[in-house]
Amino acid sequence: MSDEFDILHPQALLFVLSGPSGVGKDTVLQRMKERDLPFHFVVTATTREQRPGEVHGKDYFFIAKEEFARMIEQDELLEYAVVYGDFKGIPKQQVRDALASGKDVIMRIDVQGAATIRKLVPDAVLIFLTTENETSMVGRLQSRKTETPEGLALRIATARQELKRVDDFDYVVINSEFHLDDTVEKIRAIITAEHHRTIKREIEL
Amino acid sequence: MSDEFDILHPQALLFVLSGPSGVGKDTVLQRMKERDLPFHFVVTATTREQRPGEVHGKDYFFIAKEEFARMIEQDELLEYAVVYGDFKGIPKQQVRDALASGKDVIMRIDVQGAATIRKLVPDAVLIFLTTENETSMVGRLQSRKTETPEGLALRIATARQELKRVDDFDYVVINSEFHLDDTVEKIRAIITAEHHRTIKREIEL
Repeated sequence: MSDEFDILHPQALLFVLSGPSGVGKDTVLQRMKERDLPFHFVVTATTREQRPGEVHGKDYFFIAKEEFARMIEQDELLEYAVVYGDFKGIPKQQVRDALASGKDVIMRIDVQGAATIRKLVPDAVLIFLTTENETSMVGRLQSRKTETPEGLALRIATARQELKRVDDFDYVVINSEFHLDDTVEKIRAIITAEHHRTIKREIEL
Repeated sequence: MSDEFDILHPQALLFVLSGPSGVGKDTVLQRMKERDLPFHFVVTATTREQRPGEVHGKDYFFIAKEEFARMIEQDELLEYAVVYGDFKGIPKQQVRDALASGKDVIMRIDVQGAATIRKLVPDAVLIFLTTENETSMVGRLQSRKTETPEGLALRIATARQELKRVDDFDYVVINSEFHLDDTVEKIRAIITAEHHRTIKREIEL
Protein backbone atom coordinates (compact mmCIF):
# COMPACT_ATOMS: atom_id res chain seq x y z
CA MET A 1 0.00 0.00 0.00
CA SER A 2 1.20 3.45 -0.81
CA ASP A 3 0.74 4.77 2.71
CA GLU A 4 2.63 1.96 4.43
CA PHE A 5 4.92 3.11 7.19
CA ASP A 6 8.67 2.90 6.62
CA ILE A 7 9.23 0.54 9.52
CA LEU A 8 7.58 -2.20 7.50
CA HIS A 9 10.77 -2.41 5.46
CA PRO A 10 13.42 -3.04 8.05
CA GLN A 11 17.10 -3.24 7.24
CA ALA A 12 19.23 -6.34 7.73
CA LEU A 13 21.41 -6.26 10.84
CA LEU A 14 24.78 -7.65 11.86
CA PHE A 15 24.92 -9.71 15.06
CA VAL A 16 28.12 -10.86 16.74
CA LEU A 17 28.01 -13.80 19.13
CA SER A 18 31.03 -13.73 21.39
CA GLY A 19 32.22 -14.74 24.85
CA PRO A 20 35.10 -16.56 26.54
CA SER A 21 36.15 -20.11 25.61
CA GLY A 22 34.01 -22.73 27.30
CA VAL A 23 30.70 -20.87 27.31
CA GLY A 24 29.28 -22.89 24.41
CA LYS A 25 29.26 -20.47 21.47
CA ASP A 26 29.57 -23.21 18.85
CA THR A 27 26.87 -25.36 20.42
CA VAL A 28 24.44 -22.44 20.47
CA LEU A 29 25.19 -21.54 16.87
CA GLN A 30 24.84 -25.19 15.84
CA ARG A 31 21.38 -25.34 17.42
CA MET A 32 20.39 -22.14 15.66
CA LYS A 33 21.48 -23.63 12.32
CA GLU A 34 19.54 -26.83 12.97
CA ARG A 35 16.42 -24.78 13.46
CA ASP A 36 16.78 -23.38 9.97
CA LEU A 37 16.35 -19.81 11.14
CA PRO A 38 16.41 -17.15 8.40
CA PHE A 39 19.88 -15.86 9.14
CA HIS A 40 23.11 -15.88 7.24
CA PHE A 41 25.67 -17.68 9.39
CA VAL A 42 29.08 -16.35 8.50
CA VAL A 43 31.54 -18.89 7.11
CA THR A 44 35.12 -18.24 8.22
CA ALA A 45 38.04 -18.40 5.81
CA THR A 46 41.02 -20.44 7.05
CA THR A 47 44.44 -21.48 5.81
CA ARG A 48 44.48 -24.74 7.76
CA GLU A 49 44.12 -28.16 6.14
CA GLN A 50 40.62 -29.37 5.31
CA ARG A 51 39.74 -32.30 7.61
CA PRO A 52 37.73 -35.35 6.51
CA GLY A 53 34.02 -34.57 6.53
CA GLU A 54 34.47 -30.81 6.39
CA VAL A 55 32.74 -29.05 3.52
CA HIS A 56 34.34 -26.08 1.74
CA GLY A 57 31.98 -23.10 1.83
CA LYS A 58 29.91 -24.60 4.62
CA ASP A 59 32.25 -25.36 7.52
CA TYR A 60 35.00 -23.07 6.30
CA PHE A 61 36.40 -21.51 3.19
CA PHE A 62 39.69 -23.36 2.83
CA ILE A 63 42.13 -21.06 1.11
CA ALA A 64 45.86 -20.97 0.46
CA LYS A 65 48.16 -18.76 2.52
CA GLU A 66 49.00 -16.67 -0.56
CA GLU A 67 45.32 -15.95 -1.17
CA PHE A 68 44.82 -15.10 2.51
CA ALA A 69 47.79 -12.69 2.36
CA ARG A 70 46.24 -11.04 -0.70
CA MET A 71 42.91 -10.63 1.12
CA ILE A 72 44.62 -9.01 4.11
CA GLU A 73 46.51 -6.63 1.83
CA GLN A 74 43.42 -5.63 -0.14
CA ASP A 75 41.42 -5.09 3.05
CA GLU A 76 38.94 -7.81 2.17
CA LEU A 77 38.71 -9.20 5.69
CA LEU A 78 36.50 -7.83 8.41
CA GLU A 79 38.69 -9.40 11.05
CA TYR A 80 41.44 -12.00 11.12
CA ALA A 81 43.67 -13.76 13.62
CA VAL A 82 46.43 -16.34 13.79
CA VAL A 83 45.28 -19.51 15.51
CA TYR A 84 47.91 -22.17 16.15
CA GLY A 85 50.00 -20.93 13.23
CA ASP A 86 47.09 -20.82 10.77
CA PHE A 87 45.07 -17.81 9.67
CA LYS A 88 41.34 -17.42 10.23
CA GLY A 89 39.30 -14.48 9.03
CA ILE A 90 35.91 -13.20 7.92
CA PRO A 91 35.56 -12.19 4.26
CA LYS A 92 33.78 -8.83 4.04
CA GLN A 93 32.12 -9.56 0.71
CA GLN A 94 30.18 -12.48 2.15
CA VAL A 95 28.74 -10.28 4.89
CA ARG A 96 27.96 -7.47 2.43
CA ASP A 97 26.17 -9.86 0.06
CA ALA A 98 24.04 -11.38 2.81
CA LEU A 99 23.05 -7.97 4.19
CA ALA A 100 22.25 -6.71 0.69
CA SER A 101 19.93 -9.69 0.18
CA GLY A 102 18.04 -8.55 3.30
CA LYS A 103 19.25 -11.32 5.60
CA ASP A 104 20.48 -10.73 9.11
CA VAL A 105 24.06 -11.88 9.53
CA ILE A 106 25.36 -13.72 12.57
CA MET A 107 29.01 -14.29 13.24
CA ARG A 108 30.77 -16.10 16.04
CA ILE A 109 33.95 -14.42 17.13
CA ASP A 110 36.26 -14.36 20.15
CA VAL A 111 36.22 -11.48 22.64
CA GLN A 112 39.27 -9.77 21.10
CA GLY A 113 37.74 -10.01 17.63
CA ALA A 114 34.45 -8.56 18.85
CA ALA A 115 36.30 -5.44 19.99
CA THR A 116 37.70 -5.11 16.45
CA ILE A 117 34.22 -5.45 14.93
CA ARG A 118 32.92 -2.79 17.33
CA LYS A 119 35.50 -0.35 15.99
CA LEU A 120 34.95 -1.19 12.31
CA VAL A 121 31.15 -1.48 12.45
CA PRO A 122 29.97 0.52 15.48
CA ASP A 123 26.34 -0.35 14.82
CA ALA A 124 26.84 -4.12 14.85
CA VAL A 125 24.90 -5.73 17.70
CA LEU A 126 27.27 -7.46 20.12
CA ILE A 127 26.01 -10.35 22.23
CA PHE A 128 28.16 -11.70 25.04
CA LEU A 129 27.54 -15.35 25.87
CA THR A 130 28.51 -16.53 29.33
CA THR A 131 27.85 -19.32 31.86
CA GLU A 132 25.89 -19.24 35.11
CA ASN A 133 29.10 -19.04 37.08
CA GLU A 134 32.84 -19.40 36.79
CA THR A 135 32.82 -22.98 38.06
CA SER A 136 30.65 -24.05 35.17
CA MET A 137 32.88 -22.36 32.61
CA VAL A 138 36.04 -23.92 34.06
CA GLY A 139 34.30 -27.29 34.12
CA ARG A 140 33.50 -27.08 30.43
CA LEU A 141 37.06 -26.14 29.56
CA GLN A 142 38.40 -29.05 31.64
CA SER A 143 36.02 -31.54 30.05
CA ARG A 144 37.47 -30.84 26.59
CA LYS A 145 40.64 -32.80 27.45
CA THR A 146 42.29 -31.57 24.26
CA GLU A 147 44.98 -29.57 25.97
CA THR A 148 48.01 -29.86 28.21
CA PRO A 149 47.56 -28.72 31.85
CA GLU A 150 49.55 -25.57 31.00
CA GLY A 151 47.38 -24.88 27.95
CA LEU A 152 44.26 -25.35 30.04
CA ALA A 153 45.52 -23.03 32.80
CA LEU A 154 46.20 -20.35 30.18
CA ARG A 155 42.76 -20.78 28.64
CA ILE A 156 41.06 -20.48 32.05
CA ALA A 157 43.06 -17.37 32.95
CA THR A 158 42.16 -15.80 29.59
CA ALA A 159 38.48 -16.67 30.00
CA ARG A 160 38.47 -15.09 33.50
CA GLN A 161 39.89 -11.88 32.09
CA GLU A 162 37.45 -11.91 29.19
CA LEU A 163 34.49 -12.21 31.54
CA LYS A 164 35.29 -8.68 32.68
CA ARG A 165 34.74 -7.34 29.18
CA VAL A 166 30.97 -7.87 29.28
CA ASP A 167 30.29 -4.12 29.41
CA ASP A 168 31.83 -3.67 25.96
CA PHE A 169 28.85 -5.59 24.57
CA ASP A 170 25.22 -4.64 23.98
CA TYR A 171 23.65 -7.77 25.45
CA VAL A 172 24.62 -10.59 27.76
CA VAL A 173 23.03 -14.04 27.68
CA ILE A 174 23.69 -16.84 30.13
CA ASN A 175 24.04 -20.16 28.37
CA SER A 176 22.98 -22.68 30.96
CA GLU A 177 24.25 -26.14 29.95
CA PHE A 178 20.90 -27.80 30.28
CA HIS A 179 18.81 -25.09 28.65
CA LEU A 180 20.27 -24.65 25.21
CA ASP A 181 16.89 -23.89 23.60
CA ASP A 182 16.34 -21.21 26.20
CA THR A 183 19.58 -19.55 25.14
CA VAL A 184 18.55 -19.70 21.49
CA GLU A 185 15.16 -18.17 22.36
CA LYS A 186 16.84 -15.31 24.18
CA ILE A 187 19.11 -14.59 21.23
CA ARG A 188 16.10 -14.66 18.93
CA ALA A 189 14.27 -12.23 21.23
CA ILE A 190 17.25 -9.87 21.06
CA ILE A 191 17.24 -10.07 17.26
CA THR A 192 13.49 -9.43 17.10
CA ALA A 193 13.74 -6.52 19.53
CA GLU A 194 16.62 -4.93 17.61
CA HIS A 195 14.44 -4.87 14.50
CA HIS A 196 11.87 -2.84 16.42
CA ARG A 197 14.19 -0.22 17.85
CA THR A 198 13.45 3.29 16.65
CA ILE A 199 17.14 4.16 16.27
CA LYS A 200 18.44 3.28 12.83
CA ARG A 201 21.63 1.27 12.72
CA GLU A 202 24.14 1.97 9.96
CA ILE A 203 25.79 -1.28 8.92
CA GLU A 204 28.68 -0.46 6.63
CA LEU A 205 31.83 -2.45 6.02
CA MET B 1 26.09 -20.57 44.21
CA SER B 2 28.54 -18.07 45.60
CA ASP B 3 30.23 -17.40 42.28
CA GLU B 4 27.05 -16.71 40.33
CA PHE B 5 27.24 -13.76 38.00
CA ASP B 6 25.27 -10.64 38.88
CA ILE B 7 23.22 -10.78 35.70
CA LEU B 8 21.36 -13.77 37.13
CA HIS B 9 19.53 -11.36 39.41
CA PRO B 10 17.99 -8.92 37.03
CA GLN B 11 16.04 -5.88 38.12
CA ALA B 12 12.39 -5.30 37.36
CA LEU B 13 11.75 -2.86 34.52
CA LEU B 14 9.07 -0.36 33.62
CA PHE B 15 7.48 -0.65 30.17
CA VAL B 16 5.16 1.91 28.64
CA LEU B 17 2.82 0.89 25.83
CA SER B 18 1.71 3.93 23.90
CA GLY B 19 0.60 5.06 20.46
CA PRO B 20 -2.19 7.05 18.79
CA SER B 21 -5.89 6.26 19.27
CA GLY B 22 -7.05 3.47 17.00
CA VAL B 23 -3.90 1.37 16.97
CA GLY B 24 -5.28 -1.24 19.37
CA LYS B 25 -3.41 -0.62 22.64
CA ASP B 26 -6.22 -1.96 24.82
CA THR B 27 -6.73 -5.06 22.68
CA VAL B 28 -3.03 -5.91 22.86
CA LEU B 29 -2.91 -5.40 26.61
CA GLN B 30 -6.06 -7.47 27.04
CA ARG B 31 -4.48 -10.35 25.13
CA MET B 32 -1.34 -10.08 27.27
CA LYS B 33 -3.47 -10.29 30.42
CA GLU B 34 -5.35 -13.31 29.11
CA ARG B 35 -2.06 -15.10 28.64
CA ASP B 36 -1.34 -14.69 32.32
CA LEU B 37 2.14 -13.30 31.68
CA PRO B 38 4.20 -12.49 34.78
CA PHE B 39 3.81 -8.73 34.58
CA HIS B 40 2.13 -6.19 36.75
CA PHE B 41 -0.43 -4.38 34.61
CA VAL B 42 -0.92 -0.93 36.00
CA VAL B 43 -4.41 -0.08 37.22
CA THR B 44 -5.40 3.52 36.57
CA ALA B 45 -7.10 5.68 39.20
CA THR B 46 -10.16 7.59 37.96
CA THR B 47 -12.74 9.95 39.35
CA ARG B 48 -15.47 8.86 36.95
CA GLU B 49 -18.48 6.78 37.98
CA GLN B 50 -18.03 3.02 38.30
CA ARG B 51 -20.01 1.28 35.52
CA PRO B 52 -21.90 -2.00 35.95
CA GLY B 53 -19.49 -4.92 35.67
CA GLU B 54 -16.38 -2.88 36.43
CA VAL B 55 -14.28 -4.08 39.35
CA HIS B 56 -12.56 -1.62 41.69
CA GLY B 57 -8.83 -2.39 41.82
CA LYS B 58 -8.97 -4.44 38.66
CA ASP B 59 -10.45 -2.26 35.91
CA TYR B 60 -9.78 1.00 37.71
CA PHE B 61 -9.34 2.43 41.15
CA PHE B 62 -12.51 4.48 41.53
CA ILE B 63 -11.74 7.38 43.82
CA ALA B 64 -13.44 10.63 44.82
CA LYS B 65 -12.35 13.95 43.35
CA GLU B 66 -11.18 15.14 46.77
CA GLU B 67 -8.92 12.10 47.12
CA PHE B 68 -7.60 12.61 43.60
CA ALA B 69 -6.86 16.27 44.39
CA ARG B 70 -4.95 15.17 47.51
CA MET B 71 -2.90 12.68 45.44
CA ILE B 72 -1.99 15.38 42.92
CA GLU B 73 -0.95 17.75 45.71
CA GLN B 74 1.17 15.15 47.50
CA ASP B 75 2.86 14.12 44.25
CA GLU B 76 1.51 10.59 44.48
CA LEU B 77 0.71 10.31 40.76
CA LEU B 78 3.18 9.39 38.09
CA GLU B 79 1.02 11.03 35.47
CA TYR B 80 -2.52 12.33 35.25
CA ALA B 81 -4.88 13.89 32.75
CA VAL B 82 -8.40 15.21 32.47
CA VAL B 83 -10.53 13.05 30.18
CA TYR B 84 -14.04 14.29 29.40
CA GLY B 85 -14.15 16.23 32.67
CA ASP B 86 -12.94 13.36 34.82
CA PHE B 87 -9.47 12.73 36.16
CA LYS B 88 -7.36 9.70 35.32
CA GLY B 89 -3.91 9.00 36.73
CA ILE B 90 -1.35 6.40 37.70
CA PRO B 91 -0.62 5.99 41.42
CA LYS B 92 3.14 5.87 41.98
CA GLN B 93 2.95 3.57 44.98
CA GLN B 94 1.39 0.79 42.93
CA VAL B 95 4.27 0.90 40.45
CA ARG B 96 6.87 1.08 43.23
CA ASP B 97 5.36 -1.92 45.02
CA ALA B 98 5.27 -4.05 41.89
CA LEU B 99 8.85 -3.20 40.95
CA ALA B 100 10.00 -3.89 44.52
CA SER B 101 8.40 -7.34 44.34
CA GLY B 102 10.57 -8.02 41.26
CA LYS B 103 7.78 -7.82 38.70
CA ASP B 104 8.06 -5.95 35.44
CA VAL B 105 5.44 -3.23 35.19
CA ILE B 106 3.51 -2.43 32.04
CA MET B 107 1.38 0.63 31.65
CA ARG B 108 -0.78 1.83 28.79
CA ILE B 109 -0.65 5.54 28.27
CA ASP B 110 -1.35 8.07 25.52
CA VAL B 111 1.42 9.71 23.52
CA GLN B 112 1.38 12.92 25.58
CA GLY B 113 1.54 10.92 28.81
CA ALA B 114 4.46 8.86 27.51
CA ALA B 115 6.46 12.05 27.04
CA THR B 116 5.79 12.88 30.70
CA ILE B 117 6.95 9.44 31.83
CA ARG B 118 10.12 9.82 29.75
CA LYS B 119 10.97 12.98 31.69
CA LEU B 120 10.13 11.56 35.11
CA VAL B 121 11.63 8.10 34.58
CA PRO B 122 14.22 8.42 31.81
CA ASP B 123 15.07 4.71 31.98
CA ALA B 124 11.53 3.48 31.41
CA VAL B 125 11.26 1.49 28.17
CA LEU B 126 8.86 3.19 25.76
CA ILE B 127 7.08 1.12 23.12
CA PHE B 128 5.15 2.85 20.35
CA LEU B 129 2.31 0.82 18.92
CA THR B 130 1.13 1.68 15.43
CA THR B 131 -0.79 0.24 12.48
CA GLU B 132 0.49 -0.96 9.08
CA ASN B 133 -0.65 2.28 7.49
CA GLU B 134 -2.72 5.37 8.08
CA THR B 135 -5.76 3.96 6.29
CA SER B 136 -5.95 1.11 8.77
CA MET B 137 -5.73 3.46 11.75
CA VAL B 138 -8.43 5.77 10.39
CA GLY B 139 -10.60 2.74 9.64
CA ARG B 140 -10.39 1.58 13.22
CA LEU B 141 -11.28 4.99 14.56
CA GLN B 142 -14.28 5.21 12.20
CA SER B 143 -15.53 1.76 13.18
CA ARG B 144 -15.92 2.81 16.79
CA LYS B 145 -19.01 4.86 15.96
CA THR B 146 -18.99 6.38 19.45
CA GLU B 147 -18.30 9.91 18.30
CA THR B 148 -19.72 12.81 16.37
CA PRO B 149 -18.19 13.49 12.92
CA GLU B 150 -16.39 16.50 14.43
CA GLY B 151 -15.06 14.41 17.33
CA LEU B 152 -13.85 11.78 14.90
CA ALA B 153 -12.12 14.34 12.67
CA LEU B 154 -10.31 15.72 15.72
CA ARG B 155 -9.25 12.27 16.82
CA ILE B 156 -7.90 11.41 13.36
CA ALA B 157 -5.99 14.70 13.14
CA THR B 158 -4.48 14.08 16.58
CA ALA B 159 -3.53 10.52 15.69
CA ARG B 160 -1.82 11.74 12.51
CA GLN B 161 0.26 14.21 14.52
CA GLU B 162 1.09 11.60 17.12
CA LEU B 163 2.40 9.22 14.48
CA LYS B 164 5.26 11.67 13.98
CA ARG B 165 6.37 11.23 17.59
CA VAL B 166 7.64 7.68 17.04
CA ASP B 167 11.29 8.75 17.42
CA ASP B 168 10.66 9.79 21.03
CA PHE B 169 10.19 6.09 21.81
CA ASP B 170 12.64 3.22 22.20
CA TYR B 171 10.76 0.67 20.13
CA VAL B 172 8.04 0.63 17.52
CA VAL B 173 5.71 -2.32 16.92
CA ILE B 174 3.16 -2.59 14.14
CA ASN B 175 -0.10 -4.04 15.41
CA SER B 176 -1.61 -5.69 12.37
CA GLU B 177 -5.32 -6.23 12.96
CA PHE B 178 -5.22 -9.89 12.04
CA HIS B 179 -2.02 -10.79 13.86
CA LEU B 180 -2.63 -9.84 17.46
CA ASP B 181 -0.55 -12.73 18.84
CA ASP B 182 2.31 -11.62 16.65
CA THR B 183 2.18 -8.19 18.25
CA VAL B 184 2.20 -9.73 21.72
CA GLU B 185 5.18 -11.91 20.79
CA LYS B 186 7.12 -8.88 19.58
CA ILE B 187 6.42 -7.02 22.80
CA ARG B 188 7.54 -10.06 24.78
CA ALA B 189 10.74 -10.24 22.71
CA ILE B 190 11.43 -6.58 23.52
CA ILE B 191 10.91 -7.26 27.23
CA THR B 192 13.19 -10.32 27.13
CA ALA B 193 15.87 -8.44 25.21
CA GLU B 194 15.77 -5.48 27.61
CA HIS B 195 16.53 -7.84 30.48
CA HIS B 196 19.67 -8.92 28.66
CA ARG B 197 21.07 -5.49 27.88
CA THR B 198 24.39 -4.76 29.53
CA ILE B 199 23.44 -1.17 30.38
CA LYS B 200 21.73 -0.94 33.75
CA ARG B 201 18.48 0.96 33.84
CA GLU B 202 17.66 3.07 36.90
CA ILE B 203 13.94 2.92 37.57
CA GLU B 204 13.13 5.49 40.21
CA LEU B 205 9.88 7.29 40.79
